[in-house]
Amino acid sequence: MSRRFKPYKKESDYSYSLGLFPTIELTRYQSKRVEALLFSQSSEKSEMADRLKQLCYNSNIPVIIDDKQLSSLSKSDNSLVAGVFSKYTSILSASESHIVLVEPDDMGNIGTIIRSMLGFGYRDLAIIGQSADYWHPKCIRASMGALFRQRVALFSTIEEYQRSFPKHNIYPFIVDDKAQKLSTISFSAPHSLVFGNEGAGLPPAFSHIGTPVFIEQAPDIDSLNLATSVSIAMHTVYTRIARGSESAQVS
Amino acid sequence: MSRRFKPYKKESDYSYSLGLFPTIELTRYQSKRVEALLFSQSSEKSEMADRLKQLCYNSNIPVIIDDKQLSSLSKSDNSLVAGVFSKYTSILSASESHIVLVEPDDMGNIGTIIRSMLGFGYRDLAIIGQSADYWHPKCIRASMGALFRQRVALFSTIEEYQRSFPKHNIYPFIVDDKAQKLSTISFSAPHSLVFGNEGAGLPPAFSHIGTPVFIEQAPDIDSLNLATSVSIAMHTVYTRIARGSESAQVS
Repeated sequence: MSRRFKPYKKESDYSYSLGLFPTIELTRYQSKRVEALLFSQSSEKSEMADRLKQLCYNSNIPVIIDDKQLSSLSKSDNSLVAGVFSKYTSILSASESHIVLVEPDDMGNIGTIIRSMLGFGYRDLAIIGQSADYWHPKCIRASMGALFRQRVALFSTIEEYQRSFPKHNIYPFIVDDKAQKLSTISFSAPHSLVFGNEGAGLPPAFSHIGTPVFIEQAPDIDSLNLATSVSIAMHTVYTRIARGSESAQVS
Repeated sequence: MSRRFKPYKKESDYSYSLGLFPTIELTRYQSKRVEALLFSQSSEKSEMADRLKQLCYNSNIPVIIDDKQLSSLSKSDNSLVAGVFSKYTSILSASESHIVLVEPDDMGNIGTIIRSMLGFGYRDLAIIGQSADYWHPKCIRASMGALFRQRVALFSTIEEYQRSFPKHNIYPFIVDDKAQKLSTISFSAPHSLVFGNEGAGLPPAFSHIGTPVFIEQAPDIDSLNLATSVSIAMHTVYTRIARGSESAQVS
């Protein structure tokens, strides 16, 4: 008789990757955390699912074919496959630059940010204070499984974070008279790009920490979506570093 | 007896703004399209809701207090207010630059793109081919009501779009050997930034239309989220124009 898995809860010590792409990433990068993969009957017709099953056999990961359990876990998503894995903790790198989110409250945004981080070479995410649950299957799906290649760590306060990473140069993204333009500022490594939550942004006290930055935009708009803001910031740093190293090679 | 509104369907000739912020934008920018505003009993306690009611009285928009109807429309959202409005058509500007989405299939992405467009001075969105419904309340909510300040128009094919806007310089965002880097290319106005759909991107034929562009990113990642890509592109153009006009002022 196969094991039963209950729908996800924040308190659970395990979570699920739903869908082929996130589950491939889970199996590839965190195979030791995987407890089982659940496939639907109809996954028989998928070549990608077949290759994933093969990967499971090679890594001694149990494969369960069970449409009923799968649809109870994936709900409206109609996934071909789900991965069941134990949650784990990570320690952020002390030398690499970080993304820091203060009380983010949307799982989709956290996932999209984790996906973009991979695209722009950031591997470390600090989450400060009360936040949405980054282990939720919705967040994992929005990350396209990039979560399994990143380090994520939680801190109660920004002070606790700063004590852990005293060498990091802090850049809070905040609307403030003293803030500098993203497009002209230069960032010193290792840096921490710090963003507030979706509704309220960063509290004013953050203007006094490090070097405040703002993203230039038309006066028409209230604000950008959080994942959009973080991605624009990372892209700006990424292209600047790319251009910098090109000119270094030329000279 | 107050009028009954049915839950939203794509075929309906009306749609809903859910929540205070999108409904304020609707009432401010498209007051002639509004048929009624539905408030919850508990909106009595909200100062913003009070001001919105005042705006309705001044513009002869019916105000309906009806918790049951509101919760049937807003479902899990628990909104204080919903706006009921007639859908309308727009004609894109022939002189301003456009964002062009080819077969976008996620309402949240379309809404987030419309929100970012407002931030970076784009007012015109062309949607090509089969796509998600941009009038859906989920899209309106993701746009934070910015939809009501933008022009959106549908085209069957990119050829139809090009015939309508023959002066626009086309920049398809596509991974291709001949594509140029976003961070170094210069865009000629009026331009059209063209993006493919979430799963497949642009079909290869688009490399032969206009000037192909790509967003530099680490080799690690499959792709960025669609709304993220479009926002990064718009931000790049926006800051370049801002810098250009600053140096023009200086010289």
